Amino acid sequence: MLPIDPAEALPDDARALYETIRTMPIVSPHGHCDPSWWAQDTPFPDPAELLIVPDHYVFRMLYSQGVALSDLGVGVPRAERDPRAIFRLFAKHWDSFLGTPSRGWLEHTLYRTIGVETPLAEDSADAVFDEISARLAEPGFRPRRLFERLGIETLATTDAALDPLKAHDAIAASGWGGHIIPTFRPDDVLDPARPGHRDNLHRLGAMTGCDIGRYSGFLEALRQRRAAFRARGATATDHDVPVLATTWLDPQEIGALYDRALQGGLDADGARRFYGHMLVEMAQMSAEDGMVMQIHAGSRRSTNAALRASHGPDMGADIPVAMDWVGGLDALLNRVGNDPALRVVLFTLDEASYARELAPMAGHWPCLRLGPPWWFHDSPNGIRRYFDRVVETAGYRNLAGFNDDTRAVLSIPARHDMWRRCVGLHLAEQVRAGLFGRAEAERLAAWLACDAARDTYRLKGTH
Amino acid sequence: MLPIDPAEALPDDARALYETIRTMPIVSPHGHCDPSWWAQDTPFPDPAELLIVPDHYVFRMLYSQGVALSDLGVGVPRAERDPRAIFRLFAKHWDSFLGTPSRGWLEHTLYRTIGVETPLAEDSADAVFDEISARLAEPGFRPRRLFERLGIETLATTDAALDPLKAHDAIAASGWGGHIIPTFRPDDVLDPARPGHRDNLHRLGAMTGCDIGRYSGFLEALRQRRAAFRARGATATDHDVPVLATTWLDPQEIGALYDRALQGGLDADGARRFYGHMLVEMAQMSAEDGMVMQIHAGSRRSTNAALRASHGPDMGADIPVAMDWVGGLDALLNRVGNDPALRVVLFTLDEASYARELAPMAGHWPCLRLGPPWWFHDSPNGIRRYFDRVVETAGYRNLAGFNDDTRAVLSIPARHDMWRRCVGLHLAEQVRAGLFGRAEAERLAAWLACDAARDTYRLKGTH
Amino acid sequence: MLPIDPAEALPDDARALYETIRTMPIVSPHGHCDPSWWAQDTPFPDPAELLIVPDHYVFRMLYSQGVALSDLGVGVPRAERDPRAIFRLFAKHWDSFLGTPSRGWLEHTLYRTIGVETPLAEDSADAVFDEISARLAEPGFRPRRLFERLGIETLATTDAALDPLKAHDAIAASGWGGHIIPTFRPDDVLDPARPGHRDNLHRLGAMTGCDIGRYSGFLEALRQRRAAFRARGATATDHDVPVLATTWLDPQEIGALYDRALQGGLDADGARRFYGHMLVEMAQMSAEDGMVMQIHAGSRRSTNAALRASHGPDMGADIPVAMDWVGGLDALLNRVGNDPALRVVLFTLDEASYARELAPMAGHWPCLRLGPPWWFHDSPNGIRRYFDRVVETAGYRNLAGFNDDTRAVLSIPARHDMWRRCVGLHLAEQVRAGLFGRAEAERLAAWLACDAARDTYRLKGTH
Repeated sequence: MLPIDPAEALPDDARALYETIRTMPIVSPHGHCDPSWWAQDTPFPDPAELLIVPDHYVFRMLYSQGVALSDLGVGVPRAERDPRAIFRLFAKHWDSFLGTPSRGWLEHTLYRTIGVETPLAEDSADAVFDEISARLAEPGFRPRRLFERLGIETLATTDAALDPLKAHDAIAASGWGGHIIPTFRPDDVLDPARPGHRDNLHRLGAMTGCDIGRYSGFLEALRQRRAAFRARGATATDHDVPVLATTWLDPQEIGALYDRALQGGLDADGARRFYGHMLVEMAQMSAEDGMVMQIHAGSRRSTNAALRASHGPDMGADIPVAMDWVGGLDALLNRVGNDPALRVVLFTLDEASYARELAPMAGHWPCLRLGPPWWFHDSPNGIRRYFDRVVETAGYRNLAGFNDDTRAVLSIPARHDMWRRCVGLHLAEQVRAGLFGRAEAERLAAWLACDAARDTYRLKGTH
Repeated sequence: MLPIDPAEALPDDARALYETIRTMPIVSPHGHCDPSWWAQDTPFPDPAELLIVPDHYVFRMLYSQGVALSDLGVGVPRAERDPRAIFRLFAKHWDSFLGTPSRGWLEHTLYRTIGVETPLAEDSADAVFDEISARLAEPGFRPRRLFERLGIETLATTDAALDPLKAHDAIAASGWGGHIIPTFRPDDVLDPARPGHRDNLHRLGAMTGCDIGRYSGFLEALRQRRAAFRARGATATDHDVPVLATTWLDPQEIGALYDRALQGGLDADGARRFYGHMLVEMAQMSAEDGMVMQIHAGSRRSTNAALRASHGPDMGADIPVAMDWVGGLDALLNRVGNDPALRVVLFTLDEASYARELAPMAGHWPCLRLGPPWWFHDSPNGIRRYFDRVVETAGYRNLAGFNDDTRAVLSIPARHDMWRRCVGLHLAEQVRAGLFGRAEAERLAAWLACDAARDTYRLKGTH
Repeated sequence: MLPIDPAEALPDDARALYETIRTMPIVSPHGHCDPSWWAQDTPFPDPAELLIVPDHYVFRMLYSQGVALSDLGVGVPRAERDPRAIFRLFAKHWDSFLGTPSRGWLEHTLYRTIGVETPLAEDSADAVFDEISARLAEPGFRPRRLFERLGIETLATTDAALDPLKAHDAIAASGWGGHIIPTFRPDDVLDPARPGHRDNLHRLGAMTGCDIGRYSGFLEALRQRRAAFRARGATATDHDVPVLATTWLDPQEIGALYDRALQGGLDADGARRFYGHMLVEMAQMSAEDGMVMQIHAGSRRSTNAALRASHGPDMGADIPVAMDWVGGLDALLNRVGNDPALRVVLFTLDEASYARELAPMAGHWPCLRLGPPWWFHDSPNGIRRYFDRVVETAGYRNLAGFNDDTRAVLSIPARHDMWRRCVGLHLAEQVRAGLFGRAEAERLAAWLACDAARDTYRLKGTH
């Protein structure tokens, strides 16, 4: 027997609220899907390649249980992987996911999105593998058809500043109507601490024709790339900031730092100051061109040095760091934070900052909205704690709605469904506590499920 | 139809406990009401002036929604304000308060304390404005009559060391029996980082006749002011400490710092050391004269520089900072913390410090009591988290009971009622979990509603 | 009437899960019981000596209520104590424990483990004292018989590196079958900041015959002591780390630091670096010899200087400090953390680190398991928050199960029972939320009650 749909476990009042939003369109303004899937519209790969090898949520847990990454195909050339063996190994450790959101997403993906009818267990691994393979070969699972069937209204990808956006252009040229838009993520050209920064500056110059030999030319090149993204539908930018420390430097200092960055000669402190200044420049450009600025801050990347050396980044060893949002955003907010044209969405991995900093900040600054629980916290308890800690001080109108933030396209419905169940639970509790009535709860449910994301990211909705 | 009274939403067991404390006297040992209201006993002003313009909880939320402060009358001379237009703008954004304690307080104030019969909404703004105005004109809403009707047993105001306390004297001279007492808040003369500190020292000298040219004279002047407050019924002092760092300096160093402070010549570090020492002096004086010392620590004030420049402090941009209570109080506690005559009440804005520091400290030091959830955390979820995190380690007898901490007199019953509902909820859950029985819960309910505040602040109760 | 057994207050589904684990054997892999109790098997002392004088949970609360430690017999020679007077004073303040886990443990100990039939209250102190005394004189309460009756499968004590383990040898030589094993706690010889460190080094040399004049001889002596502990059944080591800062030094630097430590000449920074390096050496030895490494980090010890001076350490003034687990363990994990032979169990007092650091780390590093809630957090709410914050990211297989961590042998059943009730509550909620079914919940209940502790600490179970 398959596990029950967790929606059936909702209390009646929560279930009723959830049902009002269950089938609303999926608005996905932040995520990491590969746009070439829809440009090419070729079938998805085998189950291991689709569900395990690229999912750091999955393989980090298996690694913690003593499974070698190479046995999972991670860091192994595709031709040398044995997808069925990988899937068996995963199934053997299925119990270790009990209680995790990964388990919930995978169950939803397998049993509801793909339609597998055999419960996953160590001894059913092969059968499940075959069922998945059979379904993925069906025309309804081709990327474009799937996009439509899942009711995705808008899907934003995340793209480097130097990305020529050819896949997005191909989608547009194909005449297919799916609304897939890029997001401008310029850290590779902004942050001198990133590998290849100096080369990236030169590539940026070549791509835009701007004179990146001078700081003003660099800014102009950034404006050009922002415009190129906007021309392809982008409404937002994104920054992945390990340690948040915005700063505003006088023209001489930033010019001199830029000159040194061009030589590849900045030390760690200089790199931090340069990047801290560039975040403020980006906020100013956002106030000019209306692109919503997203800040994902506070992940200590690649803390397992041996794994980083052998396998590169994103191997499950990124661990959150305690945050000081007020100090970190001080320069940005005090330069441009009162500008009514600016919108900034903040994402934290330090829940201690929800009630202490983020909610009070969002409840004051007109530019700020709070992103939904991010990464480890995108989970039933994480979402409950988020509502518990932010709503009383920030209200609902300063929340950004939901982002699935996933690179696993098949998990998109699972993630939105989990959020919508949690919204139902939360709002039902508020009604039960006498904070507001059923009518207000329904309005807020729609806001949290769709409208907040549309409004925050300045998307046009279908309604 | 008016929103339901949240008390009706309580589960039966919580409701029963709440009913045992619902109508107990209001003991308000810490707040910011203006004593001149009761000295003069003139009617309260119009609804906008009463409920919106002075309430930073309200206007910060509207500011976060893009409303200009000037449109709310904030920073606008009273004669130039349009109270009805302000009230309409507030009503238009009434939805943005859903889920916040401000909404709960305002609903209680409007529908239960004032007796408005029309539900507030954008299209009822004028009607509600008129209803409020009509009620406020009634004799029962004059400050003294209202004080009696609300069942206020004691109300403490907060008063600068240099305040001549004329309003308190006028109340006493009037023969009216309301128990309104001052609280000694000497930061303006203790903290060299405050504007006008040097002038304040000279005013202190003039006021007391002490020779403030020497440090010993300064201490003597402080003792005199404490005595003057005590003579008017004060039982407590209060400190608003941005960064807590108590320290005990040798006589030479503190003398030298004082001399420089008198010249206005202390740098930031010197000012911090001076203030850190003065907090210990205050604790020593409290151990001598029995005044309960309150420390409200960890609010980063006025983080929006443009607003501070245009409108001054208290504009809704005060954001909490992470706290180290152990390090910050080390010098104070290790100098005077074992003295049985000392009582210190601690208030935090960093909930991470509840279970990690404050509860263990209160469960050890005889002088310490934990203040109730403060500011952003004075809310149903904030109160629930407070009980959840502090009681297991500190017990109930190390808690200070409730403070409304408000400058909005009409919200006093709303705030005590919210606390009492949360006390009922909390204690009912404890009984349900089998931790203790109904009899113990009733004793603790009375302790938390009234007795703890009376006992902590050394007030005489009516019972 | 006695208070109800809190198990009777469990909801039906939680109760049913709890009943599946209620009577399982007690596995106690970390605690502070005195092994000489079982070596000598003499009756336990009087009630005050047994329950109050040595329990810092109890006397810290009474101290916070203004009770003098000397009136509780703390720091008073045993011959000068009046046990009955101490017990009366404790009973007088029994109310101050309402809501604390100490109250729950004491109630379980009194009414269920000892079998007292009179409810404790101020006016029943003498009667309860007499009942306890009578029961303790029964043969069934002699340490060995009690150990068997309580169903203790394994009990680990905590023993200094220099402890000759004579009590353990005496237990083994007695032929009695109770499984009591030592735990290797070498901080006294590893941490130069500890009193007597230099003397301890010389004692270590004398004890092992190693040449501790050189660093290599010191390491060899440590290996010998580890082997001596293993020969007596030890499977684990333990470290009490105030500020966690592991580091790996080159041979020259550690050699030079060691030489200075031998002279007693290390300053605070040198001591910290030396100890930080030794923790990594210990991890390496654990990877070699298979002893599980426990790290209890983040307690600021003896923050009340006057009490420390008059009474010594462990007087209830140890207060947690905010933790940076990632930075603190960086050197250790990046040297040996990927070694499949290593196991490290982490214990925190900073709950903010549960979801932010510890769960992500345990969900990645193969060597890490998370210890159960420690000290102040070993309580119903503390356990609930632990499951709430760690399971979603770490799963259940990265948890270490339960430790009672007590020196109060009679409280062992109370502590395991509290954990098992909380396990029942937690898993019932997971089932109710639709996360998994009853069968999985029963498996996880057994894991959390016994199997995880056996597995984590490499103990052989009875099943």
